[in-house]
Amino acid sequence: MLPGGLRVVTEHVAGARSASVGLWVEVGSRDEPAVGAGTHGAAHFLEHLLFKGTRRRSARAIAEEIDAVGGDLNAFTGKEHTCFYAHVLDRDMPLAVDVLGDVVLDAVMAAEDVELERDVVLSEIAGRDEDPEDLLADDFDALLFGAHPLGLPVIGTEESVVGMTRDRLADFHARHYVPSRSVLAVAGNVSHTEVLDAVAAAYGSRASGPGEAWHRIPGDAPAGPADRLAVRDEDTEQAHLMLGVPSLRRADPRWPALQVLSTVLGGGMSSRLFQQVREQRGLAYSVYSATTGYSDTGTLAVYLGCAPERLGAAAAVVRDELGDLAAHGITDAELARARGQLRGELVLGLEETSSRMHRLGRRELDHGGLEHGGDLAGTLERIDAVGAADVAALASTLLTGPRVAAVVGPYGDADELPGEVREMVE
Amino acid sequence: MLPGGLRVVTEHVAGARSASVGLWVEVGSRDEPAVGAGTHGAAHFLEHLLFKGTRRRSARAIAEEIDAVGGDLNAFTGKEHTCFYAHVLDRDMPLAVDVLGDVVLDAVMAAEDVELERDVVLSEIAGRDEDPEDLLADDFDALLFGAHPLGLPVIGTEESVVGMTRDRLADFHARHYVPSRSVLAVAGNVSHTEVLDAVAAAYGSRASGPGEAWHRIPGDAPAGPADRLAVRDEDTEQAHLMLGVPSLRRADPRWPALQVLSTVLGGGMSSRLFQQVREQRGLAYSVYSATTGYSDTGTLAVYLGCAPERLGAAAAVVRDELGDLAAHGITDAELARARGQLRGELVLGLEETSSRMHRLGRRELDHGGLEHGGDLAGTLERIDAVGAADVAALASTLLTGPRVAAVVGPYGDADELPGEVREMVE
Repeated sequence: MLPGGLRVVTEHVAGARSASVGLWVEVGSRDEPAVGAGTHGAAHFLEHLLFKGTRRRSARAIAEEIDAVGGDLNAFTGKEHTCFYAHVLDRDMPLAVDVLGDVVLDAVMAAEDVELERDVVLSEIAGRDEDPEDLLADDFDALLFGAHPLGLPVIGTEESVVGMTRDRLADFHARHYVPSRSVLAVAGNVSHTEVLDAVAAAYGSRASGPGEAWHRIPGDAPAGPADRLAVRDEDTEQAHLMLGVPSLRRADPRWPALQVLSTVLGGGMSSRLFQQVREQRGLAYSVYSATTGYSDTGTLAVYLGCAPERLGAAAAVVRDELGDLAAHGITDAELARARGQLRGELVLGLEETSSRMHRLGRRELDHGGLEHGGDLAGTLERIDAVGAADVAALASTLLTGPRVAAVVGPYGDADELPGEVREMVE
Repeated sequence: MLPGGLRVVTEHVAGARSASVGLWVEVGSRDEPAVGAGTHGAAHFLEHLLFKGTRRRSARAIAEEIDAVGGDLNAFTGKEHTCFYAHVLDRDMPLAVDVLGDVVLDAVMAAEDVELERDVVLSEIAGRDEDPEDLLADDFDALLFGAHPLGLPVIGTEESVVGMTRDRLADFHARHYVPSRSVLAVAGNVSHTEVLDAVAAAYGSRASGPGEAWHRIPGDAPAGPADRLAVRDEDTEQAHLMLGVPSLRRADPRWPALQVLSTVLGGGMSSRLFQQVREQRGLAYSVYSATTGYSDTGTLAVYLGCAPERLGAAAAVVRDELGDLAAHGITDAELARARGQLRGELVLGLEETSSRMHRLGRRELDHGGLEHGGDLAGTLERIDAVGAADVAALASTLLTGPRVAAVVGPYGDADELPGEVREMVE
């Protein structure tokens, strides 16, 4: 840990010619309501605004410096994390460290840029409103988490973005975007010493302090599904369905069993849902399951995209497969295949320096660098330790509770949905 | 070159733990009309159908074998190329070589699977019809290439897919999906000898022959823009515009200059369009330029996504920037930055074994492995050799000819478009 409380984690990647540098901040949309009214969408708004200029660099200078080395500079905002990152040639790592620190910690946040970026964010919201799958995911989270901050869309709403003020953004920034809440994660053809040198050069003169003591305010615990079915009437050619349940928090020891469960259910071409819904019956082009983990809860969801006239038949197959999994668990052959699949995907997914940087940064933020956060070998060991009985126990717990379902498609209201969809959540 | 005419190209990637294996076939949607009526969408349809089972493996067996090792098996179909590929751990390369050869060359193409996949492809078309940017790209190509096969969408149309027969698919397959028209490209932690051994084991018993002599039928040369403006009335919240011109064929010696031109125009955050349209004026969330190269022609296009009420103002800025570029070319500072950007992007873009495999396969198909196809060093040299005068000459040639523009958005017809859009193509 460095003065100011910044944590630095690095991973040397032999053979790489690049470095991926991420400045992670332990803040996301779920932290917005704790600060006060009118901050919904602040973290995402800041993701835009901070690139507009710092005391040392104009927006154009930032863009030119990174473009000139062919680098990629970007950011994303989640519900519990925000990450500003750059992917550059290894020799350009110090530039990336310097620019990211400058942007995240020293942005000017000029009033006129707030207005410019307000329009850009509103345009992004409009674009998002055109994507049925994005809307579906928002509706699903709103159902599952209700009034809890996790139920709100990261991007905010048209209303909250229109009402955002520079003062609220600056206040939110001052509280959260500080070294003591940040992790610098670097993966690539660089050494830890080189990274520390770059940090010293870039941040050395920064006034350091203990940082504000802060604990995530959990809000009301997620209440669980209140209304169980949401229908958004859109004139789409496909029906989109997301069905799911609350699952586990990220640190739950049963997390690896959940990954096996989701893999067998809908994790690949050989999964039950893909085989039954698409391959055997041709009912949908796309069907899969996925998990999301937060610090205190999580989700397990099934997505289905199909012709509206096939939604009922496809939903019935999904319902039957969920019921079978809850009642009978998985076979030994499925367990073996899922373990191999998760192992291969994990290793193949860490080929790029950027995916390694993401893993590194998240691990440090989520698990405080403790060993239980796990290196790759530890993660693989925990996957191999999952037994069919663990999966069966988890399936019977998760899949027999109340489910929620969000639908986007040409349906005026829930009464117009096929009966099989309504039955899924009853 | 191996018996049957299959070409094998490999690249050893030190430090990788994976292998990316691609079986490329020199066939795409532009080759469909040459075979006869009713084949539009055949290449893409086959991309689906071939995975449904071979003489040795059912669809489920294919899925299970690849999932069990955590691999990724997929394919894509373009206008001039089709690629079936797998990304696996290095030790599983022989499995990937075997499965890909089996799928591409030995598929059963059962009649009932044609029916199942017909529904899946129709569902994919319906999904595509929901994506304004996909529709925009199709409309743009239709404008630019008119009745030429390059102007048709790869996926086919609802009508052509409904009318597709097994016989037509089998005939199309027999003509094109043969070793003499194929390239096996492998990049990863494997040696050329290991790949040749895997090929011998997998394809050794295959009846080999000279393959059908075949030359791509150019059809009528692309006629160039007939109608210059296409408006698709969709109830979208954003207006989407694609404006462009015919550019250069892939092998044109001016191709590197075209890349510099497109980079300066709209290739990154410091590009003219991003700075002028988004950063200075906040008129759009997304604006960029892009090039596509074919064997005998190519495109240069600008994409713009913005609020409908800003389309006129944004289009005027684009028009002015195109005019300025055509009249005055680029500055030395822009040239230096674009060279650095292209260099960095190229090197960073080749970190994954999959991107290396793609480069390898395309190079062999497009340039027959000749040196002018170029290794990385050669490509970088050609970028560094581009001068500002080359770019200026190209800009004045390409940007002063007739332009076309496709628009998707809430516009009943061309008369409802802002005058600035109509002026762009006049």
